[in-house]
Amino acid sequence: MADYTAPLADMRFALDIVARLPELTALPGFARADSDTVAAVMEGAASFASEIVAPLNVVGDKQGSRLENGVVRTPDGFKEAYKAYVDGGWNAVAFDEAIGGQGLPRALNACITEMWTAASMAWALNPLLTVGAVEALAAHGSDELKRLYLGKLVSGEWPASMNLTEPQAGSDVGAMRTRAIRDGDRYRIKGQKIFITYGDHDLSDNIVHMVLARSPDGPPGTAGLSLFLIPKFLVNADGSLGAKNDLRPVSLEHKLGIHASPTCVMAYGDNDGAVGWLVGEENRGMECMFTMMNSARLQVGLQGLAIAERAYQHARDYTRTRVQGRPVTATAPGTYPIMHHPDVRRMLLSMRARIEAMRALVYYTAATIDRASHAADVEARARFQERADLLIPVVKAWCTDQGVLVASIGIQIHGGMGFIEETGAAQYYRDARIAPIYEGTNGIQANDLLGRKVQRDRGAAVTALIVAMRGDVNGNEALETGIDALEDATRWLVANAKERAVTLSGAVPYLELMGIVAGGWLLALEAAEARRRLDAHDGDTSFNKAKLATARFYDEHVLATAYGLLPAIKGGEAVLGFDLEAL
Amino acid sequence: MADYTAPLADMRFALDIVARLPELTALPGFARADSDTVAAVMEGAASFASEIVAPLNVVGDKQGSRLENGVVRTPDGFKEAYKAYVDGGWNAVAFDEAIGGQGLPRALNACITEMWTAASMAWALNPLLTVGAVEALAAHGSDELKRLYLGKLVSGEWPASMNLTEPQAGSDVGAMRTRAIRDGDRYRIKGQKIFITYGDHDLSDNIVHMVLARSPDGPPGTAGLSLFLIPKFLVNADGSLGAKNDLRPVSLEHKLGIHASPTCVMAYGDNDGAVGWLVGEENRGMECMFTMMNSARLQVGLQGLAIAERAYQHARDYTRTRVQGRPVTATAPGTYPIMHHPDVRRMLLSMRARIEAMRALVYYTAATIDRASHAADVEARARFQERADLLIPVVKAWCTDQGVLVASIGIQIHGGMGFIEETGAAQYYRDARIAPIYEGTNGIQANDLLGRKVQRDRGAAVTALIVAMRGDVNGNEALETGIDALEDATRWLVANAKERAVTLSGAVPYLELMGIVAGGWLLALEAAEARRRLDAHDGDTSFNKAKLATARFYDEHVLATAYGLLPAIKGGEAVLGFDLEAL
Repeated sequence: MADYTAPLADMRFALDIVARLPELTALPGFARADSDTVAAVMEGAASFASEIVAPLNVVGDKQGSRLENGVVRTPDGFKEAYKAYVDGGWNAVAFDEAIGGQGLPRALNACITEMWTAASMAWALNPLLTVGAVEALAAHGSDELKRLYLGKLVSGEWPASMNLTEPQAGSDVGAMRTRAIRDGDRYRIKGQKIFITYGDHDLSDNIVHMVLARSPDGPPGTAGLSLFLIPKFLVNADGSLGAKNDLRPVSLEHKLGIHASPTCVMAYGDNDGAVGWLVGEENRGMECMFTMMNSARLQVGLQGLAIAERAYQHARDYTRTRVQGRPVTATAPGTYPIMHHPDVRRMLLSMRARIEAMRALVYYTAATIDRASHAADVEARARFQERADLLIPVVKAWCTDQGVLVASIGIQIHGGMGFIEETGAAQYYRDARIAPIYEGTNGIQANDLLGRKVQRDRGAAVTALIVAMRGDVNGNEALETGIDALEDATRWLVANAKERAVTLSGAVPYLELMGIVAGGWLLALEAAEARRRLDAHDGDTSFNKAKLATARFYDEHVLATAYGLLPAIKGGEAVLGFDLEAL
Repeated sequence: MADYTAPLADMRFALDIVARLPELTALPGFARADSDTVAAVMEGAASFASEIVAPLNVVGDKQGSRLENGVVRTPDGFKEAYKAYVDGGWNAVAFDEAIGGQGLPRALNACITEMWTAASMAWALNPLLTVGAVEALAAHGSDELKRLYLGKLVSGEWPASMNLTEPQAGSDVGAMRTRAIRDGDRYRIKGQKIFITYGDHDLSDNIVHMVLARSPDGPPGTAGLSLFLIPKFLVNADGSLGAKNDLRPVSLEHKLGIHASPTCVMAYGDNDGAVGWLVGEENRGMECMFTMMNSARLQVGLQGLAIAERAYQHARDYTRTRVQGRPVTATAPGTYPIMHHPDVRRMLLSMRARIEAMRALVYYTAATIDRASHAADVEARARFQERADLLIPVVKAWCTDQGVLVASIGIQIHGGMGFIEETGAAQYYRDARIAPIYEGTNGIQANDLLGRKVQRDRGAAVTALIVAMRGDVNGNEALETGIDALEDATRWLVANAKERAVTLSGAVPYLELMGIVAGGWLLALEAAEARRRLDAHDGDTSFNKAKLATARFYDEHVLATAYGLLPAIKGGEAVLGFDLEAL
């Protein structure tokens, strides 16, 4: 079985240099996050991920979750690991102290979440969904709902599920049919939801379902949707558990990957209607849901990073032990581990460079969200929020696409063994494939980026980002050319915003361009610091040289492809001109 | 269950325009391949693929092949379909009439092989391996071996398996340990082989194993290897079956995909040694194996094309029936099939454009092999052989990488349904993943391309190709820029050939560049013909317009990325400079 070891030095470097943690933790509210605390949290999380979570990954894939007698059973060890996670306080790290959290930065939380997601993506998916529920409830919930549920959600004692999709309502949320009927101060909900991740399980005494449903007399479309909190077991006023609510998992999907994560068809209200409470106002459900989704989108992007790191470690370790052939670089006779072959090195570096770019982008974006809520002045907060809003779809889509690509390279490095399930490399390739789909497909992310984040403000937010990037070019030609391409594409997309279909046709390659360039920018920051440390004989020479070499590889192999995306971004005419009948 | 329909019009267009079939069939030996015969063969094959083979694809994936009481059982229906295939004469289409074949061009055979491979890649893998055995035996076998085996192999009555890999000898063939001992006019072979596709099965009375093994007193390394023909059942002088040979399948691998194709660990000579006959001379086994591999590599490249076409049809049909949301292109109220959404169109075209480029490249290369054996004058034959040798690794690696990419886009188009196994899209993604690995990993293909096909002749063959391409530019800027990049890269790689490790580090992106540019060139030829037909009001307008639009999409979305590969191709220094300990 493959081990997972959190790459603590790489993570800390990205946190310090890209997320600028020392500056961040000087902001009001982060007093507890001194450097030693950060290190201690990271080390504790690393042990938890390696020792408790990582061993669950293969068994989870093999056993999968099963629906037995109307309840979902998770694979062996999942429950114990989840209890240890809650008991260790890991779920509460990034929540405000005011609601029972530890008040540590999200950037740090991104780092430790990367660890358990890399250890077992399917296991880590459950707490991931809880984060959004906490935020929605904290922002929009009534005092009574908060009193009864928020503490349990923050601690993780009661995890949450998110319920949007219905068979006829996937990306088109407004087509939803699940209905709520008023019943005193509560509601009765009736309807069926599909693709509900961890919709039922045996990890906890209760589950808090956040369900989007049609308001009693709301208008059609998304404007008539409200968000409801529907507990699996009703909660008495003293916080104790009451009767089982009128809801159940109907069936589980048979999926390509993340077998351990139960994907449920959920029935609400088979009998009298599931009892639910309104979160926020009636018909404002989408707003609340966006609060949840923004958080979840960042974390799904993080899955791309995490699964890539796991696939990389697996492949790297294989190339150190698998002896085959005599590389042209060989200086002594005999056979060598395949790591010595030039093309194997190229593949490992391709994985590594993409991972480091993703990590930089994820931590940077998480830190930007931290700044948006903790920066001293209001204007600065707004600017950080704008930056975060711009980058969240990029993090989600670009990192998850890269995750699939990196997992695929991981298989390739194993040769024939990569195709054999027992090797383990294939599981990452299967698991990784869901991330570009859920929490809004990557096409939806690109639409969001283009329409809401770029065209709506006529390119203001992205221009601010471009200005920041230009300030860090320092003669890096690849980066400069990439930024030029991003600027060119942005101008064109803004100028042609009225041609909605044409510009939407280029949204996905535009998002890819932004991901590539943003990743290159942040790696350039890391490289500049590594250069400074090398010149100053500060720190581990091999580590600093590796940072420089990784950035150079990224420039030559990834950033160099950025400019070539322009014709695709502007190529909507050819896309739309194609006769659909001729497809 | 998804249907498969052979895209006959697209196929015939590629055969006529890119493979230049009318010219090809005018060569000596192809008299039978008149236009009507070609059409009849294609139609017959299309029916066979759709009606007999395609229904096996899902059942094959679900049931897989099983090892029961020492013999392999294939999934329901596989045996009957294989019998119908042999009875229909489909196996013999491209073999010379002199050995019992139908003497039709390989280009046509590539087309019909695409059909059954698209219908069921796992089913079609068995006859694929027989092709190479026929060629090796016809070229190198003794008269007696040919008398007993060749006819049965040509008809497909006895299919073949190829046995190279051993646990310690994957890409490093020379590390092989399986040994042959002389025993009169025959040999006794002892050893274990792994990853043997269709190493055993119940599709036929006999199986002809082509086994590479160490000669009795050969030198170490590849120079001491010989090729042996080892039948599952010994064959009497009158052609009847004799005793069972001393060989058996030990176990089957549990794989990511192609579950129906039994991947065997094979034991030869558990008792007295498996009885085998030498094919060719002692210690010349690699030569014979290369004859087999060249053919197999073309056909594996074709798998990339075929699985992509199947994934495309599946995705396209889904987008026609799945109704979701209101596209910005909508002119009337209501909801629409998702095919109308700009990004869904982009994804479908991205699949389609890559498929058409692959198809053009595969058919062109097959036709080039036809020309190499049928062209009237000897010099022309040598030139065609040189072109074919150059392109075979490109076909194998580029098309199989594209196959994985296209299958992945196919999942994405399905949204959440794509991740559910019952949908079927995931199977293509799993099946496609083997093709970049077997028959020489794509890294090995790139090494072959760079070392044997480009650097050895100092760029002569590729320069001839570039000259041909330049003649067809006709003001297509994307194509010209792509050719410039290919020429630039070639010069650099030839000039720096002595820096073997540095140039090998760029071999994979160089192969990708050649694949992209060659595909763009051949699509440009198709576009020029479509333009001519449109201007002349010749043929189906919608079809001809679609060819133009596909070529334009390819230029903007694929060919435009070619130039950006140069820094990676020349980036070996950064790859090799990375400290392996820091990985």
